[in-house]
Amino acid sequence: MTEKDEAGSSTRVPYDTLVAFTREVLSTYGVPEVDAEVTADALVAADLYGIDSHGVARLGFYMHKLGQDLVNPRPRPRISVDSGPVFVVDADNGLGPVGAQFAMSECIRRASDGVAACASVGRSNHYGIAGYWALQAVEHGMIGVSLTNATALVAPTFGREAMLGTNPIAVAVPSGGENPFLFDAATSAVSFGKVQLAATEGTEMPEGWALDPEGNPTTDPGKGMLGALVPLGGTRTLGSHKGYGLAVLVDIFSALLSGADWGPHCLSLTSEFNEVANVGHFFATIRVDAFRPLVEFEAEMRDMISTLRSAPTASGESDVRVAGDPEWDCAADRSVNGLPLAESLVANLRGLGSSRGVECPF
Amino acid sequence: MTEKDEAGSSTRVPYDTLVAFTREVLSTYGVPEVDAEVTADALVAADLYGIDSHGVARLGFYMHKLGQDLVNPRPRPRISVDSGPVFVVDADNGLGPVGAQFAMSECIRRASDGVAACASVGRSNHYGIAGYWALQAVEHGMIGVSLTNATALVAPTFGREAMLGTNPIAVAVPSGGENPFLFDAATSAVSFGKVQLAATEGTEMPEGWALDPEGNPTTDPGKGMLGALVPLGGTRTLGSHKGYGLAVLVDIFSALLSGADWGPHCLSLTSEFNEVANVGHFFATIRVDAFRPLVEFEAEMRDMISTLRSAPTASGESDVRVAGDPEWDCAADRSVNGLPLAESLVANLRGLGSSRGVECPF
Repeated sequence: MTEKDEAGSSTRVPYDTLVAFTREVLSTYGVPEVDAEVTADALVAADLYGIDSHGVARLGFYMHKLGQDLVNPRPRPRISVDSGPVFVVDADNGLGPVGAQFAMSECIRRASDGVAACASVGRSNHYGIAGYWALQAVEHGMIGVSLTNATALVAPTFGREAMLGTNPIAVAVPSGGENPFLFDAATSAVSFGKVQLAATEGTEMPEGWALDPEGNPTTDPGKGMLGALVPLGGTRTLGSHKGYGLAVLVDIFSALLSGADWGPHCLSLTSEFNEVANVGHFFATIRVDAFRPLVEFEAEMRDMISTLRSAPTASGESDVRVAGDPEWDCAADRSVNGLPLAESLVANLRGLGSSRGVECPF
Repeated sequence: MTEKDEAGSSTRVPYDTLVAFTREVLSTYGVPEVDAEVTADALVAADLYGIDSHGVARLGFYMHKLGQDLVNPRPRPRISVDSGPVFVVDADNGLGPVGAQFAMSECIRRASDGVAACASVGRSNHYGIAGYWALQAVEHGMIGVSLTNATALVAPTFGREAMLGTNPIAVAVPSGGENPFLFDAATSAVSFGKVQLAATEGTEMPEGWALDPEGNPTTDPGKGMLGALVPLGGTRTLGSHKGYGLAVLVDIFSALLSGADWGPHCLSLTSEFNEVANVGHFFATIRVDAFRPLVEFEAEMRDMISTLRSAPTASGESDVRVAGDPEWDCAADRSVNGLPLAESLVANLRGLGSSRGVECPF
């Protein structure tokens, strides 16, 4: 059952409906059922959590890559270097979620047999939202870590050219009855999608989002799209090296350890549609009970979360929140009321389905 | 041999001289030779790398804690939970560097015998600069990670009270002939020392450093000292949750896993001089050759570093640098020319030495 929002500008589609449609479309490229399922679920989870830029809006991009034989529809991810709790995965140029699920499942298995594990993954593709993979560790009583590199969009401090991806860092931490603590953030000040949106809407950006091609701060999204994103913490200001340094760390763990492309060697915005990528990810799992009893730790996590939530607010602010709160709030609404898809996206998905002979149920 | 700087405002003291003096002063409190040595070396290393706020300027604070029996001069750090590659250290309320050295050495040993190790450390104290410990892994062909929590100084996003420490993250990565890649950064926008300095000098701060007691951005350092520091990425702006979330993660790894105090339970600025602390740290070591041959990895690190250094600069900027460059440049100068100590610091150190019957050689 799908419903029009009151404003009529978006359609609410149930989670399962959207997953089923996405899975069916992917299957038409010969993607095996289980791989289509995890890819569909990873994409739709982004919509569930409110990170719409990484959700089914990307289906067309995934289809293009499959259709042009730029992504392997039937990859066989394998452990190319096996050092026990530390290993390297060759994702065989499959859809990103396929290699990511292979690596994260193996990290969880190895940490279950031991205490911790980590994997660097190469020859992969876009894997959706980083937090989706980190969260999988939590139900096993583990802290989960998920990193990925990406298309170069961000300038290094004092630089003007895009040399690094928005390289997100996600860490999920068990907290018992509560929704888990979920930190999931790009190491850029904002996402490229924010700049694109400002360009589409013809609005000015705040300073601190992007640089023009000469490396000067700009509020003109058009210039920003030709220039580069600013790293977390700004650029050319005190602290500006921090986001830049974190982005490089993500590249080191995801790409230099696995042999994937890094930084400027990752596909550029202009080439990413027409070439084979070699994206890198990194995953880690650590059993909490290797440190202390899980229930004891989870109780202290809940205490920490409630202490932070009840911290005195700045004047004019209504509440202090904790990492993951916006995602869980959004998911609580959308899992009941469906995922709001803009009419333009609905039209796009219908077209994509029809191009593969798959009827769109919304 | 010490030399006056041209300006006469600081004295250049050789590294070894400063370490020997610091060690000797600590020894008068019954701190064993080896513990006094590592503590002195960790403090003076901060001066070497140019992080003067964490260097011998803190000796008086360490002495106060020892003199008031608030720190155990002869601690016996022990592994309180031993899960093999993952373990918990009880630092027995010793000087921070003593527990840190115990934990990091054990992480290196366990990763040498296996592939990776990590430790959460509780009942510790201020451990100097985070990067000092991360760097120790590099000479063993390992990536080193070092985190610590600290006195609550930073407001959570949308909050107004200091609830979190400046909680630094340090990661050091082997890169062969080059100085290692060394990321070492607080998760606040700037350090408290920067605000203090502005207050001392009577200058305005840029916006984005600190909040007044109502949680409003302030450029008045006096108000900032009564309020709280801003997390990395700002507060009440897009991206402001990122530094805040990273700071909480550091607390989770350093304190919630070890049982140390976290966030607002850490000593406050007003209590830290007169109470026993329970600081937490976290260390991790990962062998690079568990992923790929070390020389191959190091060659790619050097390629990455030189690629970033030769990135096109923003207009008006002379160069793009890489994490660790400022520290290595500073160390190259200071290891040859000595550490520049302000006259006020020299006078302070002479007084501290004299109070313990230790002659100051500079």
